[in-house]
Amino acid sequence: MTSAVESIEAPDVPVLDEAGRALLFTEARTGNAFADTPVSDEQLAAIWELTRWAPTSANLQPLRVTFVRTPEGKERLLPLMSEGNRVKTASAPVTAILAVDSRFHEHAPTLLPIRPQMRDALEADEATRSAMAQVNGPLQAGYFILAIRAQGLVAGPMAGFDAAAIDAEFFPDGRWKSLLVINIGHPGENPWFDRLPRLDPADVIRWA
Amino acid sequence: MTSAVESIEAPDVPVLDEAGRALLFTEARTGNAFADTPVSDEQLAAIWELTRWAPTSANLQPLRVTFVRTPEGKERLLPLMSEGNRVKTASAPVTAILAVDSRFHEHAPTLLPIRPQMRDALEADEATRSAMAQVNGPLQAGYFILAIRAQGLVAGPMAGFDAAAIDAEFFPDGRWKSLLVINIGHPGENPWFDRLPRLDPADVIRWA
Repeated sequence: MTSAVESIEAPDVPVLDEAGRALLFTEARTGNAFADTPVSDEQLAAIWELTRWAPTSANLQPLRVTFVRTPEGKERLLPLMSEGNRVKTASAPVTAILAVDSRFHEHAPTLLPIRPQMRDALEADEATRSAMAQVNGPLQAGYFILAIRAQGLVAGPMAGFDAAAIDAEFFPDGRWKSLLVINIGHPGENPWFDRLPRLDPADVIRWA
Repeated sequence: MTSAVESIEAPDVPVLDEAGRALLFTEARTGNAFADTPVSDEQLAAIWELTRWAPTSANLQPLRVTFVRTPEGKERLLPLMSEGNRVKTASAPVTAILAVDSRFHEHAPTLLPIRPQMRDALEADEATRSAMAQVNGPLQAGYFILAIRAQGLVAGPMAGFDAAAIDAEFFPDGRWKSLLVINIGHPGENPWFDRLPRLDPADVIRWA
């Protein structure tokens, strides 16, 4: 016997298990202090290996990543962070500068072989190019933050930095533009603030 | 005996398992045709229940979601999609219009109780407000796409639509601004295109 309720049951598809939900979403926390425990270049490469498969508009993947993990690199970065972000950034074994490539469309013939003309169309249309980078850079940053957590690492994303100064120091040719800076590592002492509230779903979701 | 290599080994922390990586990142595909199989309001609410815990700047969570899943709602939406997106959008049991709330800062006293003055500061500073929405809206959209996949559902994100017309039709008070439109459902016939290439990590990643 099939009831109306059963008839709208979803088919039996694999879903993310509780451990995965906790690791990526429900129990994960933003880190504000990091342990000395190192993070290997292989772990960092593995973060990108997940991130890169998630979708972007026209497959054009504008996000770029600079992993700062040497003492010299940290010395260049720290004074360009907002004062309140310096101590935690100094404590993280790695800090990723996420940027968008303002000339991401040059890769169109490789990335979208069915429409190689996208390269020239976007070369001629700075407004569309800029709008695409503005949406897809942060979209990929969202994937990247969850991919850090997927490695069992703690992410500490920060918007407080001198973007013009970071661009001048790390991207002097002017092609990459910094977007977010993210500490990566293992939790140190008192790594979390109290968890802040989330909006009531009734303030977020409408039905049509 | 401890070798130099062992000394940089990461501690034994839980990581996302292979099934979770496949479901969210490495094997998931963008859907271009959807089955009749319905998606319940509970499944849609569960997508938001994951999305909302991932981090945003100053915890201000600007993303808003309209789940279009009635025939009337679909009739309002379809003519506002680009022609090439109409057939697939008609086939999806649910289509989510993701938008940013241009007045997201009104929630600051609730969301960031340690700095309730953020509301008035952002009210007076349209440029910072707009920059925050521009980064954090798509950032949350990235979380949202992976949260759809976490429910075992297929996401079909689209940037091709008449944003001004969608805003006029669905958000006539002018407060929410559409960002991306995402089909949600189960795969239909020939649901995937051939997988497109990803950038070589050497074109994306730098080390400092």
